[in-house]
Formats: sequence, structure tokens, C-alpha cells
Amino acid sequence: MAAAVVSRTGGRKRVVILGGGFAGIHAAQGLAKLPVDVTLIDRRNHHTFQPLLYQVALAVLSPANIAQPIRSIVSGNKNTEVLMDEAIGIDKAARQVQLASGAVAEYDYLIVATGSTHSYFGRNEWARLAPGLKTVEDATEIRRRVLLAFELAERQMLECGTHPPLNFVVIGGGPTGVELAGAISDIAKLYMRKDFRHIDPAKARVTILEGSPRILAAYPEDLSRRAVEQLAELGVEVRTNTHVTDVQPGHVMVGEERINAVVTLWAAGVQASPLGKLLEVPTDTRGCVLVDSHLNPEGHPEIFVCGDLAHVEQDGKQVPGVAQPAMQMGDHAAREIARDLAGKPRTAFRYFDKGDMATIGRKAAVAKVEWPFKAHLHGLPAWVVWLVVHIFFLIGFRNRFAVFREWVWTYFFFTDGARLITGSQELPGWHDCDEADARRGPLDLNSPDK
Amino acid sequence: MAAAVVSRTGGRKRVVILGGGFAGIHAAQGLAKLPVDVTLIDRRNHHTFQPLLYQVALAVLSPANIAQPIRSIVSGNKNTEVLMDEAIGIDKAARQVQLASGAVAEYDYLIVATGSTHSYFGRNEWARLAPGLKTVEDATEIRRRVLLAFELAERQMLECGTHPPLNFVVIGGGPTGVELAGAISDIAKLYMRKDFRHIDPAKARVTILEGSPRILAAYPEDLSRRAVEQLAELGVEVRTNTHVTDVQPGHVMVGEERINAVVTLWAAGVQASPLGKLLEVPTDTRGCVLVDSHLNPEGHPEIFVCGDLAHVEQDGKQVPGVAQPAMQMGDHAAREIARDLAGKPRTAFRYFDKGDMATIGRKAAVAKVEWPFKAHLHGLPAWVVWLVVHIFFLIGFRNRFAVFREWVWTYFFFTDGARLITGSQELPGWHDCDEADARRGPLDLNSPDK
Repeated sequence: MAAAVVSRTGGRKRVVILGGGFAGIHAAQGLAKLPVDVTLIDRRNHHTFQPLLYQVALAVLSPANIAQPIRSIVSGNKNTEVLMDEAIGIDKAARQVQLASGAVAEYDYLIVATGSTHSYFGRNEWARLAPGLKTVEDATEIRRRVLLAFELAERQMLECGTHPPLNFVVIGGGPTGVELAGAISDIAKLYMRKDFRHIDPAKARVTILEGSPRILAAYPEDLSRRAVEQLAELGVEVRTNTHVTDVQPGHVMVGEERINAVVTLWAAGVQASPLGKLLEVPTDTRGCVLVDSHLNPEGHPEIFVCGDLAHVEQDGKQVPGVAQPAMQMGDHAAREIARDLAGKPRTAFRYFDKGDMATIGRKAAVAKVEWPFKAHLHGLPAWVVWLVVHIFFLIGFRNRFAVFREWVWTYFFFTDGARLITGSQELPGWHDCDEADARRGPLDLNSPDK
Repeated sequence: MAAAVVSRTGGRKRVVILGGGFAGIHAAQGLAKLPVDVTLIDRRNHHTFQPLLYQVALAVLSPANIAQPIRSIVSGNKNTEVLMDEAIGIDKAARQVQLASGAVAEYDYLIVATGSTHSYFGRNEWARLAPGLKTVEDATEIRRRVLLAFELAERQMLECGTHPPLNFVVIGGGPTGVELAGAISDIAKLYMRKDFRHIDPAKARVTILEGSPRILAAYPEDLSRRAVEQLAELGVEVRTNTHVTDVQPGHVMVGEERINAVVTLWAAGVQASPLGKLLEVPTDTRGCVLVDSHLNPEGHPEIFVCGDLAHVEQDGKQVPGVAQPAMQMGDHAAREIARDLAGKPRTAFRYFDKGDMATIGRKAAVAKVEWPFKAHLHGLPAWVVWLVVHIFFLIGFRNRFAVFREWVWTYFFFTDGARLITGSQELPGWHDCDEADARRGPLDLNSPDK
């Protein structure tokens, strides 16, 4: 029997935070000066700045530019300790979290902020064929596949004098899908062109397959239209009302139609982290925990659910699962605990929406600005706003500086970024060169060795 | 039957270079202006600046700081194409290289520069338990193990109030072993201290096990002594004449003696790349190709062997397998081809030794300077020379700038570097807390899941 790794001492209150994303980090920072003991538990050693993860995937930035060890982020917080472990169960009656290591963490307050993960709508076998983008490892795997596709085409061109088209398919037209598609098109057109002798990387085709009637469905309609226009300028084809029915090595199926794909990426759906279910409180269909205006699940004022894992309704709409609300929920949970300690009544959480934005390759973006003024921006102005906001919100001066510098190199000097292929460097075997075969065999990087 | 991917056209001579390390890149640059067609083949897409790889392993630098896509390095060379593939056979009579993909590359001149790999002296099962340092993936794996060791100790301390000693064992006291050992000690003492609440990272112990009578055996004796002194100041124990007889999860054996090791690293031996054997020409015991003063194996003036793979004797001593001679051999091979084309006689290769150096943690190093003056340096002066030389030789202004900046942050501001754990984040299971068990069970990160 393992002892409790974190105990309620009876003295200061013990706050256990699960998850070191935006919500968890903000909660920890909000608790830093309070007379409580804080334990931040994450199964990874680093916080990831997810809004820029697609730039790691497309080789503009390095993982270390956008990820920061959680220990360093909170190392100034005297009352906070960090534990690398994973929650696998929660005993609400005993106020205990069971950890994957076998140990137990006791709490007076629990902040659950373990976020969301990809949803393949029950088709988990697609995960291997169409990776999504949530972690640094996801990003390097996507980078590996995209860069290897060009290498493979060059090699096939050398031998056969021809290569199957470089089709990249992105499933899902939300912000991540749009950003991935735009960035693939960008690197093919701008950065890879001078590196290859036999293929023309600029001929790569990128297609977004979106199930609903428009991409960026969470944005105002005029910005969706602008996004489609700007994607078209980059040569990205957008197909809406298009439901993928199967993902196979080398192609995806849309009903009877077969769409060849050298690399397929998944940006179509997210579901709540499994911890939502483990809490055994009411959740929505995606597994997000239904919380009240204090971010508590029903009947548990000592538990706060924050970030993507929380289902918060405001003015009849669900607060979106993006960075800003997560940060604000983390802040709020810390404030509620402070009010408890001070004997003050709790206050309701209210999401203050400053706006939302998505980049579309280099020099283009769409932005719905809500604060400090209201505007719908697109093109270069939106992109500049995007740059400034993202530099500002990066954690750590070192990273802010590093990303700024990388962007200057990449966007203004067009030097290559972090175009390293790591992990398996294996390319699928050589194709025979008789013409029929060369035409038949699709380039296929959807089946890695792992 | 696969067609030839690279053909001799009968017009310009075709030079095939195998390997994009120091020798291969220098050869390609030397051939850039000649009327030849060059094909540079490497199984990886990037050149690695190996002298700084240990800094990636110990989380000071990121992989992209010291690796550069081969395509970008030679993208200005109009006569050069890059192929991502692996040579698996050489038909010297037909002047053809068989590639792993199944294709064939024909050559008029062949430059073989595929370097060396770890040698576990026939105990290949040790590779999993004690990784060596040759590639970017090796470096991130070593980083993963070293950083996880501290996480695991912290977790065990939290539960049990005690943890087995953080012993790191480096097998081999050459430059790589010394640099790894010094750097582990450095990060434990300088950078990790403020991040942990329950363990004292500074109590980590690092031991170098060297089989021969002294470390840095290729250096003058006074510098070996200085190195031992400087390592001792960092708390690194050096044991010479110490032959490891077994490597096991959690410990290594030296005869009957058992040395506990949370992480074991291998820096003990290298052997030639398998291509040495495939050439079917005379090699030495480590598989290095015996070449004449023109870097040709006997009877093959059209084949040049360069870098670590070449066994070159000069003044009765073997030219060492480090970066400088590799660069010079690559240059030389290109010059010999130029002389052939110009109808001039070939000249003998002569290694111009400017010296050699190894760092020992932050602010210390040993350097044997041969040019532009002769000196044996140690301590801070040697370290400053080391910094300047390594910045200068990094390929690409971008990388030079990036590494310089990282070093300023790390060495002068003590901010954390790239302390990301990627890949498997799994820690070994929790230990039971009865005292006997806590004392008995060693921390063990030697058995990763892969």
C-alpha cells in the first residue's frame, strides 16, 4: 500500500491542481501568494503553448521555443510543488486523487484542468493514419511526415521521372486545420522551393475537408469567407459539407470518392480528457464537465473544473475551448479559493472575450477583435495583431525573445527554420518504374513504423 | 528492376558522396564550382554538428541549434543534388552504389564519408541500457533519461521521505565522456537546484569509468591531470583502469563490484560505419578503411574515403577521428578531383593539426593548441577558446547566432535551457515505502519502453 504522497496536514489547506496547461498554470500563479500548499500534477514535464504548436509541426519553431518546463514556470512560487504523475481516479468522498504511480494525493481543494484530446469519432484506428496536433510529439511527428513526403517525391522523381501528386489532406476546418493547411502551403511555396532539384514543391496541393457548411464555424460568417479567399490565394482548396467516411494509407474516402493523400492530418474533433468521466459528475456529450457559475460541478464546491474540460454556458452559448477562457478560469478558481480563505462569498465566473483569431499562412489571418475595440480584421492587419498577441502571451521572456527572433528570420529573411526530421527516417520502399505502377502507387506516409 | 537513380551520362563526371557529416559537406562545398555533377546521399535529412551534441543531451541547446538540413547547406550549389537514402552495397567494378530503397547510383568518383558508430565490444544488448551519443535522437534520449531521474527521485522522496542516491555513470573517459559527465554535474548543481522542493539535485553523483590508465588519453598527460582536477571540482569522480564487465538495469558491474546507476551512458568505443566492410578493401580492426596518402583504398583512385571511416597514418600516428581531420579530408578529396579534371598530378593529404579541446562543464576546459601558437590551456582560458572556436565552425549564420544567444542565457543568466522531456514520459512504478525496500530498490531509468 502506497502512502499518500501529498497529505492534508490539517494546517494550511492543500490545493491539488491536475494539469499544467493554461488553466492549471494560471491557477497556480493565482494561488502563489495565498496561505495554501499547492501541488501541481502533470504527466509531462512541460507546459506547451498550444496556439503555436502548428509552427513546430511546420518547422518554423523548435519545441523548446514554445514549451517550458512546468518546474521553472512555478519555481518562484514558494508554496508550490510539482509532481510528474498522472491522475487515474478521484475519490470525491475521501478527497483523494489516485495517481498512475500507485500513490495518492489528498486535497482540500481540487482544480481539474486536464484539457482535451483528439476525438476520432470512435474510429481510433485512424489516429495512426491521420495524426492530430496536441503535444510536442504530435508536432514533430507531423513535421516528420510532411518533410519526408517531399523527400520521397524527389527520390521517386529521380528514378522514374514522375511522382504521384503531393496531396496533403487536412480533415477539419477549425482554426487548427486552417493554420496547418496554410502553413503547409507556405513552406512548400516559400521555403522548400530552392532545396529540391527534381520536384517542384510549389505544386503541392493542400485540401481542407470540413463536415459543416463553413470553415471557422465559431467565427462570424464574413471572416469565414475571408479565410476561404485567403486560403485560395495560397492554393489551399476548401471543401465544406464533406464528410470523411474512411481514412486509409495513401488516401481518404468521402463516400464513394477517393482522395489521394501523401499525408493526412486530423483537426476534426476534440473530446474531453478522460478525467471528466472519472469525476463521476454530469458531463456533456463530449465528456466536458457541466459546472455552475463558480466552475464547480454540482454539489462539490471544493472541486473546480477549468479550461477545455469545463462546459460553461454564458449568455446561452458555450464558452469556447481555447486558451483565453482557460486562463481566465484558472485565475477565477484561485480567486474563489482566496475568497473562501478570507471568509468572503464567492463570485460568478464571467468570460471576458477579447476576441479570437487564426492565421492563414504568412501575412494573412482573420481576427474577431472584441476588446479594446470591436472589429473584424483579415489579411495583413489581422496577421500583425496575431503576431503581437502571441508574442505577448508566450510564457517566459526567453521564449518570447526566441520566437520573435525565429519569426524575423523566417518571415523576413526566408531562411529555413527548424526543418529537422527526427524519429524514424524510413521512407517507404522504391517504386518500380513501369508507368502503370508509377501512376498507381500513391506516395504514402500515413503508416509510420510506430 | 529499379532503374539507376543517378546515372553516368558520359558528359560531366558524376561524383557520389555518401554521408553528410563534416567530410561529406566539405567535399560537396569543394566540388561546388567544378564541372561535375554531385549527388550527396544521406539517410538523414540533416547535418549534425557533433561537437555540440552533448549540449543538446544536457538541455542547453535544442536540436535545431546544431543541426541543419543538408539540402539548405548545399542549396546554393547548382551542381549538387541531395538524396535521402542509405547505401547498402558498393559494386566497385560496375561503379555503382546499391541503395536501401532498391535504386542504384552510378558514379565516376565516389567519396565515402559515413563516419562511425558506437561499439559495445560485442555486447549489443548494452545499447538499450547505456545509450551513446551520435545522433540528435541519441541526445534527446539521454536528455529524457537524465531529466526523468530527477523527477523520479522527487516523487520517491515525496512518498517515502528518502530516495536512492542519484548516481550517474558514464562509461568511457574520452572527450565525449568528459563533456557528458561535466555537463550532468553542471545542470544538477546550477540549474535544477531551484526547481525541486524535496530532493537536492546538487547531491547527484557522476562517475566516469575509464578502462585505460588515464582519461583523455589522446591528450598530453598534463592536460589529463588538469581534466581530473577540474572534474573533481565539479564533484565528478574519475576511476581509471576500470573495466566494466556488465551493464544491467540500475547498475553496472566492474568485476565483482556493483556500482548503482540511475542512468548509464556509453562513451567508451566507436567502430567504423558498416560501409567500410561493404567496400571490400583492407580495413583495420575497428573497420576503418586503410587508405593511401591520396585517401584512396588500394587500387581505387576513383574512391576516396574521408573522415572517421578513413584510417590515415601520418608521422607514425593515426589521424584522430574528430571533426577537423574530417573537414580537411573532404576538402582534399574535392581538390584531388579538381586536379584530375585539370590533368594535374595528385598531391598527398596532410593533416594540419590546429589542436584539440574538450570542455569540462561551465567555465572549464582543456585545450592542446597547435596553431597559431603552441600551448596547453586549461580552466577558463581553454573554455573561452573552446567557445570561440565552436561558434566559428558552426555551419550557418543562423545557428551561430542561435547558439551564441543560448550560451549567453545559459552561462551568464543561468536561465534554464531546453529542459524538455519528449518521447516516453513514463516513469518506473512507485516503490513501496517500507524502509528496506526503499533502500534496496535502485532508481532505474535504464530500461525505456522502446
